[in-house]
Amino acid sequence: MTIYEIISKKRRGEKLSADEILFITEGFTRGEVPDVQMAAFLMAVCINGMDFEETMQLTGAMMYSGDVYDLDREIGICADKHSTGGVGDKTTLVVAAVCASCGVYVPKMSGRGLGFTGGTIDKLESIPGYRTELSHEEFIGIVKKAGFSVTSQSGHLVPADKKMYALRDITATVDSIPLICSSIMSKKLATGAGRLVLDVKCGSGAFMKNADDARELARFMLETARRMGRKCTCVITDMDKPLGRTAGNGIEVAEALQLLKGEIRPGADGLYQVCMELAARMLMLCGKGTRDECVALAENAISTGAAYEAFCQNVSLQGGDVHALEDYSLLYSPKKTLLIRADRAGFISRIDCEKAGLCAVSLGAGRQRKGDAVDHSAGIHFVKTVGEYTDKGDIIAEIMTSTPSCDTDDAAHMISSAYHITEEEPERIPPVIYTMDTV
Amino acid sequence: MTIYEIISKKRRGEKLSADEILFITEGFTRGEVPDVQMAAFLMAVCINGMDFEETMQLTGAMMYSGDVYDLDREIGICADKHSTGGVGDKTTLVVAAVCASCGVYVPKMSGRGLGFTGGTIDKLESIPGYRTELSHEEFIGIVKKAGFSVTSQSGHLVPADKKMYALRDITATVDSIPLICSSIMSKKLATGAGRLVLDVKCGSGAFMKNADDARELARFMLETARRMGRKCTCVITDMDKPLGRTAGNGIEVAEALQLLKGEIRPGADGLYQVCMELAARMLMLCGKGTRDECVALAENAISTGAAYEAFCQNVSLQGGDVHALEDYSLLYSPKKTLLIRADRAGFISRIDCEKAGLCAVSLGAGRQRKGDAVDHSAGIHFVKTVGEYTDKGDIIAEIMTSTPSCDTDDAAHMISSAYHITEEEPERIPPVIYTMDTV
Repeated sequence: MTIYEIISKKRRGEKLSADEILFITEGFTRGEVPDVQMAAFLMAVCINGMDFEETMQLTGAMMYSGDVYDLDREIGICADKHSTGGVGDKTTLVVAAVCASCGVYVPKMSGRGLGFTGGTIDKLESIPGYRTELSHEEFIGIVKKAGFSVTSQSGHLVPADKKMYALRDITATVDSIPLICSSIMSKKLATGAGRLVLDVKCGSGAFMKNADDARELARFMLETARRMGRKCTCVITDMDKPLGRTAGNGIEVAEALQLLKGEIRPGADGLYQVCMELAARMLMLCGKGTRDECVALAENAISTGAAYEAFCQNVSLQGGDVHALEDYSLLYSPKKTLLIRADRAGFISRIDCEKAGLCAVSLGAGRQRKGDAVDHSAGIHFVKTVGEYTDKGDIIAEIMTSTPSCDTDDAAHMISSAYHITEEEPERIPPVIYTMDTV
Repeated sequence: MTIYEIISKKRRGEKLSADEILFITEGFTRGEVPDVQMAAFLMAVCINGMDFEETMQLTGAMMYSGDVYDLDREIGICADKHSTGGVGDKTTLVVAAVCASCGVYVPKMSGRGLGFTGGTIDKLESIPGYRTELSHEEFIGIVKKAGFSVTSQSGHLVPADKKMYALRDITATVDSIPLICSSIMSKKLATGAGRLVLDVKCGSGAFMKNADDARELARFMLETARRMGRKCTCVITDMDKPLGRTAGNGIEVAEALQLLKGEIRPGADGLYQVCMELAARMLMLCGKGTRDECVALAENAISTGAAYEAFCQNVSLQGGDVHALEDYSLLYSPKKTLLIRADRAGFISRIDCEKAGLCAVSLGAGRQRKGDAVDHSAGIHFVKTVGEYTDKGDIIAEIMTSTPSCDTDDAAHMISSAYHITEEEPERIPPVIYTMDTV
């Protein structure tokens, strides 16, 4: 067995054995397989694919390339969630607090944002004093007390994925279902929760552009979870438009807080519905009842204020300033704000997620490169969203930044061009498209 | 236009534009496109292919990455040949001398051998004193005087191919028709002869394992030559067994000399026939007559001794000791020779080319790694070849070496296992399988 033979085999479209997948993954992680060989291999995988079994073997090999936790054993029955990434996705902030207040532990190891999708860690760091670099003991302690905790990923969690992702990022080998599946699942399995809800984004602003691809990715992840002995639910949700009405860091925390405080009307946009579905599915996996019972539990956690309370407790335990949860200017106070007005009357038929995301990055809310600093005050307020009517001259969006080098005219142009206005009312896409479970 | 987009496009199996191919090839040659991106791109090309037009664009971009010659202008009407590589291929030595003696210039820039296929330069260097590193002026001068000259490739000939081949060699992206075509043709076009005969080897000992693949490669090379304004003929020849009865360096020169001196009976094995066909095709391209007339011219050059004379003149002009052309012990005098005997009676049904080639390398005749020294005395004499009968205990092969570190028992085992002996007489494969021309 040589690396050359393994690459040749996948180039010919043949199925690899468990040993072969382990050999190339371990060799690459240890630095024995040069990057050029791995780049060629990854391209062969992208084009010729991998089946369930190969994907599970790759996931396992990656998972065991670094530290592996068993949080069910350390904490008790707990649930985790993951989203495949999109614009304006602040669901973790809401869902973790809702589940915690319903008696389900949510230990969340999260990454920083890269490109036009934000990271939960960056968002939480807009709360003054909030610490995300916790020791493992501290992390476990906070989960036990507040019901949930969010920590940045440890340096030695799935090193295979870190190395592989750096290569995929420059070799056009990112959007491959087996590679996305193994990247997500290796990290989720290594962090060790026995129950997992996956939010698979679908639409123009997601890796999966259509429902078929999203369903295929969901099938791969569910099958991998099943074979690794984990309970898992995939919720396919819409990412044809930004989720909720904000994109950024501080501004997204503020929107999540509004939701937790019951200030957002359930039907106002998709955010409420997606959060309730994800939380309910996590509660279901932990045996809290049927789907309808769990939705009722989640909604109740909002209306009684229990979820908000759990959030406050977490912030306090992670060193954050709880005043910021009432005074949002402590979360974000941009030096510059621009109002964007509709150049014609009509219905908002579309908001281009990629453009909106790139606009947020250009305002300073995201990173162009790994290691860049993030402007917590920067972001976008989508005053009008898809399906809503605007008169000519109405304010449709607000953009804001505290980054001196930001070209706000350019950003204003970007967000204007992201909005499409038409005479006819657009077709409504439900925020939650489809749900799939492991058997 | 970015490298990422070009890789993505080929990954999706789309056709690349001339500009895109030029952009990635030039960027890679200049070191601006990192090896990992090129490795991913080459794998995408291997799996998804390139059409005639893309292949021609790639060939052109590679060709102009370094020095380009116009030998027709410098020398007059001249012809070149190239072989796709095999075991025991000493045809250049014969064909160049035959053509030169028939009034056709053959300026040959050649490479050193790597792996189990030998290089013409290595073979010629077994003649004591023979110089292959000629200045360009000296090279042209010898062609004009002796009719042919062989020089090692200049350092700045098609640098794109050197870099690309080094990557392909370790990423399992060698056997791709568009990549083989562009690698061969960029070098042949850059060295500048207006007429070109390509010997496409076909069989278990060649890159092209079957006639369909060989024909497809020939079609690509002919079409590329046509679009670049060159006359070209492809001769598809058998490489299911070694060509002739020797593999090595000095020993192959000796066999070529026997042929040039008329000492090899035309029907003895395929070598004579392949040499006559290749020479005749080169003469045809230079307007020396019909195919049959040109075969007669070539055979005549052997029987009159004119070709041998041309060979002697070349050796003398390139500084070689002409005594070696009579006393073969000056070409090779191995310190150790082993006789290999048949372990059963029957017909030789097959000689595994790859095993034979690897045996020759292990004896010291070839290179394991670029830059290794070559043992000119090392080699194999195929005393019996495919189709011939042997009694049990008859000598079927001789192996020889002067390399002290060589494990001759191991080599003997290798060559024994390369010979297959069966009761039935094997089917005969004609040495020249098929010929194709540019229109």
